[in-house]
Amino acid sequence: VVTKRELQRLKPELERILGSGNVLWDEKKLKEYSRDMADFRGDPVAVVRPGSTEELSRLVRLANRERIPIVPWGAGSSLTGAAISHAGVVVEMSRFDRIIEVDTVNWFVHVQAGVILDRLNRELEKSGFFFPPDPASSFICTVGGVLSEGAGGLRCVRYGTVKDWVLALKVVLPNGDVAIFGEPLPKNRAGYDLVHLFVGSEGTLGIIVEAWLKIQPIPYRRITRMMTHFHSWKPAVQAITRLRSERVQAALLEFMDGNTVKAVNRDFGTSFPVHPATLLIDLEEELVQKSLAIIRSCGAAEVVVAKNEEEAEAMYQARAWSYIAVRSEATGSRAEDVCVPITKLADYLTFVEKVSKRRRLKIVVHGHAGDGNVHPLILFDKNDRESVKRADAAFEDICEYAIRVGGTITGEHGIGSQKVRLLRKQLIAHGGAQPLKIMKAIKRMLDKRGIMNPGKYVEAA
Amino acid sequence: VVTKRELQRLKPELERILGSGNVLWDEKKLKEYSRDMADFRGDPVAVVRPGSTEELSRLVRLANRERIPIVPWGAGSSLTGAAISHAGVVVEMSRFDRIIEVDTVNWFVHVQAGVILDRLNRELEKSGFFFPPDPASSFICTVGGVLSEGAGGLRCVRYGTVKDWVLALKVVLPNGDVAIFGEPLPKNRAGYDLVHLFVGSEGTLGIIVEAWLKIQPIPYRRITRMMTHFHSWKPAVQAITRLRSERVQAALLEFMDGNTVKAVNRDFGTSFPVHPATLLIDLEEELVQKSLAIIRSCGAAEVVVAKNEEEAEAMYQARAWSYIAVRSEATGSRAEDVCVPITKLADYLTFVEKVSKRRRLKIVVHGHAGDGNVHPLILFDKNDRESVKRADAAFEDICEYAIRVGGTITGEHGIGSQKVRLLRKQLIAHGGAQPLKIMKAIKRMLDKRGIMNPGKYVEAA
Repeated sequence: VVTKRELQRLKPELERILGSGNVLWDEKKLKEYSRDMADFRGDPVAVVRPGSTEELSRLVRLANRERIPIVPWGAGSSLTGAAISHAGVVVEMSRFDRIIEVDTVNWFVHVQAGVILDRLNRELEKSGFFFPPDPASSFICTVGGVLSEGAGGLRCVRYGTVKDWVLALKVVLPNGDVAIFGEPLPKNRAGYDLVHLFVGSEGTLGIIVEAWLKIQPIPYRRITRMMTHFHSWKPAVQAITRLRSERVQAALLEFMDGNTVKAVNRDFGTSFPVHPATLLIDLEEELVQKSLAIIRSCGAAEVVVAKNEEEAEAMYQARAWSYIAVRSEATGSRAEDVCVPITKLADYLTFVEKVSKRRRLKIVVHGHAGDGNVHPLILFDKNDRESVKRADAAFEDICEYAIRVGGTITGEHGIGSQKVRLLRKQLIAHGGAQPLKIMKAIKRMLDKRGIMNPGKYVEAA
Repeated sequence: VVTKRELQRLKPELERILGSGNVLWDEKKLKEYSRDMADFRGDPVAVVRPGSTEELSRLVRLANRERIPIVPWGAGSSLTGAAISHAGVVVEMSRFDRIIEVDTVNWFVHVQAGVILDRLNRELEKSGFFFPPDPASSFICTVGGVLSEGAGGLRCVRYGTVKDWVLALKVVLPNGDVAIFGEPLPKNRAGYDLVHLFVGSEGTLGIIVEAWLKIQPIPYRRITRMMTHFHSWKPAVQAITRLRSERVQAALLEFMDGNTVKAVNRDFGTSFPVHPATLLIDLEEELVQKSLAIIRSCGAAEVVVAKNEEEAEAMYQARAWSYIAVRSEATGSRAEDVCVPITKLADYLTFVEKVSKRRRLKIVVHGHAGDGNVHPLILFDKNDRESVKRADAAFEDICEYAIRVGGTITGEHGIGSQKVRLLRKQLIAHGGAQPLKIMKAIKRMLDKRGIMNPGKYVEAA
């Protein structure tokens, strides 16, 4: 930790490095950077805004010398407290805002960490390319945040998550040194793979300043989008299982329960049919008939195929905005992020129902069913301590269940400060004593003075 | 190093762990395991054949206690000396031969390290799935070897290399402990990504005993295969560049020079047209017309579209057996494995021509042009020391060139003992001082006594 007083002493040096306008500590600014999207809270002492790798490198060197905790900040759209600073300095990355190069022959984009994901995709679209991973926060989240979280999204059922799309990273290490890991090449076997060590490291091993990301031609094939509705989630899950075992690779395979659709209809003025379970599915033309036959044989109550772009887009938006719509129903919410084997999806949803009853909480469910990564959203009254306690207990119930059935406590949101104890439990239960030990040793080795996003994630587990 | 005498002392203990039939050191056996596919040579003291993870764990513990160097051996199909033991024990993995589970709902296969890749794919085919990476040695190479090398192959232009297909690994660590890294799930963000640290670690961090690999439905779409011939490699490279910039994602995009086609025709009795440059291309139906127009506008001399499965298969085999055919032309050969940006492919091939002239050596070129990973094969007389020296110099010329233009010295064959100095040079030139330092620190941390495949790769760089 660092105190305001200690930082006062370093202010001249900080301002020399960053310029006086980029070292901020007025109360309003600090408040703005003191909470993330899921309302995890901290108490940063200052917010700094480096304008170049050189400046950031000098800043980190100073922080290392003075043992000042630093936490990189993209958009604060973390759902796990990963971007929250406790008595440290928030390193705001928005000035790293350049799309350096779109290479349409080698199929990569070279981009700075502060670029917002949707802006990147708008730029790529001009050349007919896209970057597939699409977290729901893509309208605000940054490339650096997405990489540090190893984020996922709706298109991942077909394209994989962020880790599958990174060729190389430029990183400012905890000692202030600058390193490039990987090569902007489709194939590279020179040395151990350190790129993937940094993807999903949640700002605990260094600060990502630039990335070389794979890009993909926008598919030229017409995709059919449909919403298929079921009387309960059991036949819906059966449909998912059958589609997979019959080798249907969907381009999108999302789940919404009735409460989700209701909330979306209410907040966005839409009128999607409300059934206990709805699947949103994208399919290539050739797979549509086969898939419809499977879906109907599983007892679908209603199937609506989008008739045009506009209808298709509305269906997508319904799912994309589910989290925002449902969240607004209560003063507090916790988003689960467990991922279970698809063969356990039915049991998992049964268990969530039980938890909802036992803990007397409304739990609304939607998410990436085709990946087994369905997000129950636990709603509670944040002003009622007893309700908060039950929500926390429900959250842990569901994570513990995931660990028991061979799932993971996090598919795409990460650990942050939220799931530290559960991380330890999962790693030891599934992998033995060594994986966590090795992770901790790597953290200590790279960040000897423990300044990078300390007290969270692997270090705290 | 360990001497035969020291090992003699440990023989009773070794035989207690492995059974007497699985501790071998007769001269014939040792010779069999003393050279790899590219004729790198070593002098192992014993070959042991563990039959289970438990046995291997006890063996490694013993090796660690006694500081005996151990080198895992899949099929010895390494081209870089990676599987070669110098005064140590070869750990032959062929008894790890079980395909444990093919999961057609969760789309993974759980498999032991000694399973041969082609056997795995024959098994997967029964359920309509496949494992995409396809190194040319797939008829002998093992899952463990493929993972340790982070191998590539012909299909990688579309599907990526091995690292894109691994969900989880069971590893015997250098201290004998058993760990599982990752989860057999499509999404998992629990902890740092150690899976990818082990993929491509060339047996220097531990021995992979089991893997959970992603599998993919066999494509249902008809693929058109063609051979397109050019008067020189310049228009051929232009065609590749144009196809890429016009967003054609080929399913196969391979290069062969005239000498390669000649060698194949001679060795396999085929009669493919011989031109200075030939591309083998697989395309989805919808891309064929557009691609043919591009290829013709680049000045193709001849285009042969496969009329049926049989013709298509023959074309594929021509490329798959190129290495074997060309290699047989000389007593010695070195396979280059550099990967360059596709935008540098033309300059790269010009440079290879220059090297061939300057070093007075025949260099035959074929490989994965769509990835920029073309393999020049340097031919020499292994009984003529001066010729060997020139071949080594030519090999280094080409690697140094790759480093200069932002390429990598290895796209898919790895480092082994062959490219240690070049690895150091590339990492420092492209990434700064830190990446290699971090790699070495990780090696020391995991393998404190330096027993795992010592004296090679990162450790030696």
